[in-house]
Amino acid sequence: MTTTATETRQFISSVQLLEHWQGHRNLTRRVIEMFPEKELFEFSIGGMRTFAKIAVELLSIAGPGLKGIVEKQVEDFSEETFQPKTKEELLAKWDSETEVINQYFNQISEERFQETFNLFGQYEFPIYQNILYFVDNEVHHRGQGFVYLRALGIDPPFFWERFSI
Amino acid sequence: MTTTATETRQFISSVQLLEHWQGHRNLTRRVIEMFPEKELFEFSIGGMRTFAKIAVELLSIAGPGLKGIVEKQVEDFSEETFQPKTKEELLAKWDSETEVINQYFNQISEERFQETFNLFGQYEFPIYQNILYFVDNEVHHRGQGFVYLRALGIDPPFFWERFSI
Repeated sequence: MTTTATETRQFISSVQLLEHWQGHRNLTRRVIEMFPEKELFEFSIGGMRTFAKIAVELLSIAGPGLKGIVEKQVEDFSEETFQPKTKEELLAKWDSETEVINQYFNQISEERFQETFNLFGQYEFPIYQNILYFVDNEVHHRGQGFVYLRALGIDPPFFWERFSI
Repeated sequence: MTTTATETRQFISSVQLLEHWQGHRNLTRRVIEMFPEKELFEFSIGGMRTFAKIAVELLSIAGPGLKGIVEKQVEDFSEETFQPKTKEELLAKWDSETEVINQYFNQISEERFQETFNLFGQYEFPIYQNILYFVDNEVHHRGQGFVYLRALGIDPPFFWERFSI
């Protein structure tokens, strides 16, 4: 592979990416919090999943995905292991996963971000692409959560407010 | 500022970020295409904007934002200059902005990504954060577009299919 000076410009460091991601996770946490308890587990539009189901998907991807990358273990994706019944339970798991994400993310070397990994035994892409997918997928689904909140007559938080005041 | 080996790990290069962003833009283009002409300009949920309005916002941010960064010009944000009346007009502008984005993005040096810039005279952040905002904001709003499509009984494209076949 040939590279030029242009091609090797760094866009962001891993520390900046992690901070950016955790900022997004903090905003998603606030969206979970804003749902009334009942609607979090029951409300949906157009046959889509509830926001509680979406949050469980996000939790099933981030920590377990990074763990697989660090330990080089190809495990199937599963949303079955965590089935919260209350908002409180969901938020507690959200918070404990924050540390899990920090811990595993910081063990990935610069070289490994460029290596291909078969995530959950299904998605064979460079690791940086897998991680960008974790973030984008969260932003995408949280955008759906914003519509649910609006449809419920609740103003969502500002999109650019990533950290609590 | 002290840095450690860990802190200076590169996460992605600028070329990888641009490719990632244009992949997202390609998916957003497909979402615009999937809306029926009438609903693109009229349908909304919970008092939110139509997807045409959202697409105009995205077009008003990306190219003009990068131009401001490259030319170091602080201009106000405006959605008034482009007011498409048809889907075809919107898609043509989407395509022409693809080149505008490539052209300006490739003029930003590694050092400048870390510099602070007062985007649209309002958002004083490091340039890499401004650019991540452009991408995230698009993913966020496109997530809303997916809900609109579902509510209209239309299956949206797969989230992970970023390039046309």
